[in-house]
Amino acid sequence: MVITIIGLGLIGGSLAIDLREKGIAETLIGVDNNAKNANDALRIGLVDEIRKLDEAIELADLIILAIPVDQTKMLLQEVLDKIKASTAVMDVGSTKEGICLVADKHKKRSNFVATHPIAGTENFGPLGAIRGLFNNKLTIICDADKSAEFAIDKVKSMYTAVGMKIINMNSKEHDLHAAYVSHLSHISSFTLGLTVLEIEKSEETIFELAGSGFASTVRLAKSSADMWAPIFQQNSHHLSRALGAYIDKLVLFKEYIEKHETGKIHDLIKEANDIRRILDGKNLTL
Amino acid sequence: MVITIIGLGLIGGSLAIDLREKGIAETLIGVDNNAKNANDALRIGLVDEIRKLDEAIELADLIILAIPVDQTKMLLQEVLDKIKASTAVMDVGSTKEGICLVADKHKKRSNFVATHPIAGTENFGPLGAIRGLFNNKLTIICDADKSAEFAIDKVKSMYTAVGMKIINMNSKEHDLHAAYVSHLSHISSFTLGLTVLEIEKSEETIFELAGSGFASTVRLAKSSADMWAPIFQQNSHHLSRALGAYIDKLVLFKEYIEKHETGKIHDLIKEANDIRRILDGKNLTL
Repeated sequence: MVITIIGLGLIGGSLAIDLREKGIAETLIGVDNNAKNANDALRIGLVDEIRKLDEAIELADLIILAIPVDQTKMLLQEVLDKIKASTAVMDVGSTKEGICLVADKHKKRSNFVATHPIAGTENFGPLGAIRGLFNNKLTIICDADKSAEFAIDKVKSMYTAVGMKIINMNSKEHDLHAAYVSHLSHISSFTLGLTVLEIEKSEETIFELAGSGFASTVRLAKSSADMWAPIFQQNSHHLSRALGAYIDKLVLFKEYIEKHETGKIHDLIKEANDIRRILDGKNLTL
Repeated sequence: MVITIIGLGLIGGSLAIDLREKGIAETLIGVDNNAKNANDALRIGLVDEIRKLDEAIELADLIILAIPVDQTKMLLQEVLDKIKASTAVMDVGSTKEGICLVADKHKKRSNFVATHPIAGTENFGPLGAIRGLFNNKLTIICDADKSAEFAIDKVKSMYTAVGMKIINMNSKEHDLHAAYVSHLSHISSFTLGLTVLEIEKSEETIFELAGSGFASTVRLAKSSADMWAPIFQQNSHHLSRALGAYIDKLVLFKEYIEKHETGKIHDLIKEANDIRRILDGKNLTL
């Protein structure tokens, strides 16, 4: 089938690599309003051709929206307006409720499939694309009952081809869980980066004392502002609660540390250690 | 030389592996008041023999204290009391000022070398020990002017043998930087683990939605309570300031998210992204 990828960044570009390799796409068309990204993607062979939005929509059997979630919300209606009746449209955003609300208002709602592949790195742009990014990872399809069977089938065959397992979830439930398990991690990491950069005026000292533990915790602080700022905005309700809970616990930690309540600190750490059981069960690669 | 390692955990055990391999220790003596750890260390060949503290001190040319920092503070005086004049004693703790204050009161202060090798994993105990943990990493010697030349020489030859680069630092300065670059990372990670565990009553959901980003940020939450609670206590002054700064920034993030100030969130993230330049310069392996 002809696949159009709108947004040739880390996710769009990495999908392109695997879709070509698995023989799923007979033609891969790229769209990117950033001319450098479009040129880079064509030059390194991620896509076969770069086209204008209207042409790319018209030619496609499957359209993948791989752009920041605010742009997805803005563009979705236009894309649905212009597709053929047999074209499926999917997004890959990290928030789902707001995007689904836009889709719900459209008469071609059933052509759309809301998805969130749980895969990524802290890098971005077409040059950040990597082979096999999705292999053995999980993707979520939200509100599947609102999508037509033919659209779900196209999306599932695409995800299965790149090696993903698929689960279903309600879009509201998705955003709640994503706030805690994904979005909060990013904020804690951005904030750690900001705090250390502010205090450690001497970069030499960060350079010297930073171990692999710090590097691991602060890794996500390298992530794209264009991608993450709109995610935080769209998930503000759940994220505000998650941040509130996180800050409350930090305040407790701080109080115990100031009062030298080492026994209570020990208890908190033992409780946190329980995360090992869950992560080890999942055997996540870093 | 005969090396006595007191505390056969991740650091003591990993040092034992490399010291044997590099031919530095003609005999490796282990001491651990946890009988299981002592047996495990002997069984897997980390040390040649397990001895009681007094014997192990008497026989040693170099004594490595690889126990939690509260125990180091308690044991250091007794060890210095009992050593031969030619024996060097070193610790490997993540806080330095409090330990140096104890050493400073002892008439054999110059036999002691305060050190902090920047190496570790989130695992612990002798079975967590790994070959090559210290290779190409950095170790810090604090207040070196208070140590005798012979003691510094023994410690340096030991660290050089296992592949470490050595820098010098004042113990007070060390604790300030460690608060921001190491200890704060651990608290942010413990707290993230606690927050997610609390909200996500259904473990199945954490299991499903946790990606490599979450795993990276929360990795340190697996770390040992016995090791970290005393570190936080001993570095409470600097850590309280670091946590205060971290919480202030989180509160700002929360406020911007609640007010949908996406431009300001974008600015904060761009600022945090600067950590990439520093980490990439260091080329830290996770």
